[in-house]
Amino acid sequence: MDYMRFPDAPEGLGSEMHDWITRLFPICRSITGEGLRRSLRMLQEVAPITVSEISSGTKVFDWTVPDEWNISDAFIIGPDGRRVIDFKDSNLHVVGYSVPFRGKLIRKELDEHLFSIPDRPDTIPYVTSYYKRRWGFCLPHRLRESLPDGEYEVVIDSTLRPGSLTFGELVVEGQTTSEILLSTYLCHPSMANDQLSGPVLAAHLARHIIDGPKPRLTYRFVFVPETIGAIAYLSSSLEKLQRSVIGGYVISSVGDSGDFSYIQTRMGDTQTDRLTAHVLKHSGKKFQLVDFLRRGSDERQYCSPGVDLPVGGLMRTFYEDSDVYHTSEDDLTAVTPEAMEQSFSMYLRCLRAFEANRKFRATVPCEPQLSKRDLYPDLGERDVCRSPSRAILDILAFADGTHDLLWIADRAERPIWELAPFAARLEREGLLAAVD
Amino acid sequence: MDYMRFPDAPEGLGSEMHDWITRLFPICRSITGEGLRRSLRMLQEVAPITVSEISSGTKVFDWTVPDEWNISDAFIIGPDGRRVIDFKDSNLHVVGYSVPFRGKLIRKELDEHLFSIPDRPDTIPYVTSYYKRRWGFCLPHRLRESLPDGEYEVVIDSTLRPGSLTFGELVVEGQTTSEILLSTYLCHPSMANDQLSGPVLAAHLARHIIDGPKPRLTYRFVFVPETIGAIAYLSSSLEKLQRSVIGGYVISSVGDSGDFSYIQTRMGDTQTDRLTAHVLKHSGKKFQLVDFLRRGSDERQYCSPGVDLPVGGLMRTFYEDSDVYHTSEDDLTAVTPEAMEQSFSMYLRCLRAFEANRKFRATVPCEPQLSKRDLYPDLGERDVCRSPSRAILDILAFADGTHDLLWIADRAERPIWELAPFAARLEREGLLAAVD
Amino acid sequence: MDYMRFPDAPEGLGSEMHDWITRLFPICRSITGEGLRRSLRMLQEVAPITVSEISSGTKVFDWTVPDEWNISDAFIIGPDGRRVIDFKDSNLHVVGYSVPFRGKLIRKELDEHLFSIPDRPDTIPYVTSYYKRRWGFCLPHRLRESLPDGEYEVVIDSTLRPGSLTFGELVVEGQTTSEILLSTYLCHPSMANDQLSGPVLAAHLARHIIDGPKPRLTYRFVFVPETIGAIAYLSSSLEKLQRSVIGGYVISSVGDSGDFSYIQTRMGDTQTDRLTAHVLKHSGKKFQLVDFLRRGSDERQYCSPGVDLPVGGLMRTFYEDSDVYHTSEDDLTAVTPEAMEQSFSMYLRCLRAFEANRKFRATVPCEPQLSKRDLYPDLGERDVCRSPSRAILDILAFADGTHDLLWIADRAERPIWELAPFAARLEREGLLAAVD
Repeated sequence: MDYMRFPDAPEGLGSEMHDWITRLFPICRSITGEGLRRSLRMLQEVAPITVSEISSGTKVFDWTVPDEWNISDAFIIGPDGRRVIDFKDSNLHVVGYSVPFRGKLIRKELDEHLFSIPDRPDTIPYVTSYYKRRWGFCLPHRLRESLPDGEYEVVIDSTLRPGSLTFGELVVEGQTTSEILLSTYLCHPSMANDQLSGPVLAAHLARHIIDGPKPRLTYRFVFVPETIGAIAYLSSSLEKLQRSVIGGYVISSVGDSGDFSYIQTRMGDTQTDRLTAHVLKHSGKKFQLVDFLRRGSDERQYCSPGVDLPVGGLMRTFYEDSDVYHTSEDDLTAVTPEAMEQSFSMYLRCLRAFEANRKFRATVPCEPQLSKRDLYPDLGERDVCRSPSRAILDILAFADGTHDLLWIADRAERPIWELAPFAARLEREGLLAAVD
Repeated sequence: MDYMRFPDAPEGLGSEMHDWITRLFPICRSITGEGLRRSLRMLQEVAPITVSEISSGTKVFDWTVPDEWNISDAFIIGPDGRRVIDFKDSNLHVVGYSVPFRGKLIRKELDEHLFSIPDRPDTIPYVTSYYKRRWGFCLPHRLRESLPDGEYEVVIDSTLRPGSLTFGELVVEGQTTSEILLSTYLCHPSMANDQLSGPVLAAHLARHIIDGPKPRLTYRFVFVPETIGAIAYLSSSLEKLQRSVIGGYVISSVGDSGDFSYIQTRMGDTQTDRLTAHVLKHSGKKFQLVDFLRRGSDERQYCSPGVDLPVGGLMRTFYEDSDVYHTSEDDLTAVTPEAMEQSFSMYLRCLRAFEANRKFRATVPCEPQLSKRDLYPDLGERDVCRSPSRAILDILAFADGTHDLLWIADRAERPIWELAPFAARLEREGLLAAVD
Repeated sequence: MDYMRFPDAPEGLGSEMHDWITRLFPICRSITGEGLRRSLRMLQEVAPITVSEISSGTKVFDWTVPDEWNISDAFIIGPDGRRVIDFKDSNLHVVGYSVPFRGKLIRKELDEHLFSIPDRPDTIPYVTSYYKRRWGFCLPHRLRESLPDGEYEVVIDSTLRPGSLTFGELVVEGQTTSEILLSTYLCHPSMANDQLSGPVLAAHLARHIIDGPKPRLTYRFVFVPETIGAIAYLSSSLEKLQRSVIGGYVISSVGDSGDFSYIQTRMGDTQTDRLTAHVLKHSGKKFQLVDFLRRGSDERQYCSPGVDLPVGGLMRTFYEDSDVYHTSEDDLTAVTPEAMEQSFSMYLRCLRAFEANRKFRATVPCEPQLSKRDLYPDLGERDVCRSPSRAILDILAFADGTHDLLWIADRAERPIWELAPFAARLEREGLLAAVD
């Protein structure tokens, strides 16, 4: 049976994924550089990701791949000679892509380079300046306000030079060339949920599919820096993807314990939209559907006009609803093994639904004689129509070659995983023929 | 005027139909055999039904026409020598298609061949076993529980041999070849509402149309055993029906006093669906629309993929909502002359709506000058636009050749029988042209 | 920027328009004749309207242009020798198109020629009899009831002779041949709101467009007697209009202080419908959408099958909801300078929306790099996605060449006038291309 092709998640997978988040957490990543490269190499221990490089200066659609940024150290020494901010304490302290700098500034001059959140005074914000050359430090607002007047010594030991943008890719070939695209971004420094939960879940999902029987569909996993990475990747692969991708997700922020959120595609009418809403609804858990208007991550690129891939976003707490989003509070306490395991299982349900969802055509007019195939009671009693065979009749009644099994499941008000085994049985009996 | 082509039901028709139900009630029918044949011959007294036979063993789509079943007697004699169950008391006592049997069984062995409804202890259920060779008796649960231990003598004098499946057909030719298919099943033993009300109404409806002026549409009446009969009929006539049928109904269970129920077609979007909902809504009576998911009778075949005829089901109390459905309680008290007459009239309304429902195109751009044809007040007063002429203007305003009169009636929030006479008048004036 | 092409209404325009209504008020107009002709000549002082004539007897679709009607005097002298009704007091006193008459009638004979409204006893109704030759007088019901028995002398000095039907037209050429049709009727005698507010606003709107920079679209203003005039106009210009008209309005009853009402086109799905509902909704004012079923004026012709122009009606209080409609109470107190100015501004908003509403296609796949064009913050902070740049991203995200800017505005839940300047900017940057 197609639908059950993917086995359940192995025991302890949640903890294993959480351990991986912990290992990857300290690395300082950005949209280019050694942190990103090293993170991808570590994930190769989980699944056979192919790592590629795109040179700085390469034109990718309307953009240009920027210089590569690396940083070894950064700090600010206060008027009293003590380090008041140190990159070694948290890599969030330095504005991403800060240019190298050494110099002395008085308090007021320094302030123009400081970033903090007044109404979250104990947290360090995550700030970047990829496309404008500047430097800066991020710090808790309370600390910023306590900095006395006087002269400060600033050191940023970074480099910003031609190099390359790194990304990872892994394709699990299925029986058909129709593809599910699973994209996750890897470019933020030390944040647990809105950075590491996505790539770690993606890598483990890839391994899980590789370890199982050959799937019907092909699964393409992509690990890219957000925005520029997705654009660079699409720039090189757009036509191929447009030919083969029939569904997919941006995987991110899947490690917190909040309800699931699904970010719809641009028009909200793709198979991915219908399928994910169906799976979430029948999972019995609370969830929200998020209009594309509120999009935030690489679904912006995948769903843009001219690209138009059916790729939504399946996550836990929606970015805008999260207090810790893009701050130092998104640390290892923000993700749990249980949440990672639940998210893994929800993704598995969705992928199983994709495996099961085909268009079928009934091969004979009228209902077939099911009782001779032991698919219907041979005794005509009062309640025969309310029997479990009803699911079989419903599949046959709607298998008109234009509506897919998901549509039939929605029409019959049953989860697709209830219908899928019957559809497979009917296909084996020769009563249904797949038309896709 | 097309719409009024069918005259109203003649006085006393309800009683006449009820008498027919009474005459047909005692016959033991099944999906083949003499009971079915005799019932059809009797209905030929009402209308000129053509009776045909399909031989046992004929392949009909995925099915095979079964052997013919006939029964002359059946009973069970208890340990005390008295007949505890006798086919002569009620033909529901024997499971339909029971194989011939003569033998002695102890109470426990006998029980495997008994059928009853524990929570309706005084009623005999209706049970069949068409496609698995077995025998059995149906009885009130209270009686079953009172049967003492001991030896029972069982006699079933039935035959199950190659023969044929019988069905009836009657076509009333109209001015066009577009057809309304009116199908009713005839295969149950002594049950009044869910068996005889349908064929009796159908036969009288046929006679009524024959007796009136020639209709615009052709009317095809079909009397078949349920499921296998409809399949066999479709197997022989599918292409012809697909070319000509534009609407239709499975007529059944029209004799009880419950509210009307309409079982929608598979997608719920055919002319039959729109028209029937419209007629029911404007009839001012309570009614329910039943989703195709809850289908139960031959609409299962007519609406199956590959057949796809626009045939719904118009009945009174929906099967599942009826307590007496498929039991001995569906007797002559379950149907009334008044209900039969109301159902007849509702069918007549629907057929009139089919007659009236055409697509029209206004023959001149802009509104025509209605006042010179006495179709509009010649005095321009304050309230002129609220006058009854509004209906005429509404027909003209929406007669764009793509929307039918039913659509216009729905759009204008009026019953089609209010608009139809005006449409006919405008057609005569040359201001409307039918485009279908 | 296309959208702002039309400047705001000049100061004092409301009073200027009200003065024009006052000047035109006393003239006795009908669907033909000198009153209509003189009114058009006066409006030529506002804008360069071309005046044309169509001879009596000309066939226009299903109609014939009637004889021309003119009237110089009319009165009734009572039994006591005093004038009880005098055309010179109010031209509403005479039924429009009354044939000439001189004679003496007793009270009872006279009554057949009198028209009044019993439940509005102090008002004179507006009554016409264009296509049936009769004569009559309209009067307050209270006056009618006070008329004593006796002999009355009746004089109607009118003429009804072959002549012509007069209409006006004014085309302001734009950069494209796509047209907005603005039609207003001019055929009622002394009524202020439901007669003069429309033509006066239309004339001033035409002048305003002429005085501004060349618009993108062409604007066609039409001043016709209601019904017969619109039909005659369409009869001569239908194909041309069908090729070019993409939107438009019947302008009438725009001078009272009631909420705006928009009469939808026949199917309610044209650009005009979407756009007007959008503009009204985002204007922050109360309004109602009126179904085409309740149509009353020349939208009846413009939206008829075979004509099918996307022309709705934008007015203040809907006819049927107005107490003064078609009575002598629709006098100069029924219209105010403020209301005229508000209506002018609302029309201006709609026309600006038509100017701005185009279909755009994003020229590059994926989001373009907006920060290098100063269209996006160069600093990646927590709230960047909630910034005003969101509007730009939304335009690009939905600019798929099939949805117009109005659709995008509705989708993004913003008024089109917020998006239009950004769309213009993106077009200049080469990131959007118009596809219409």
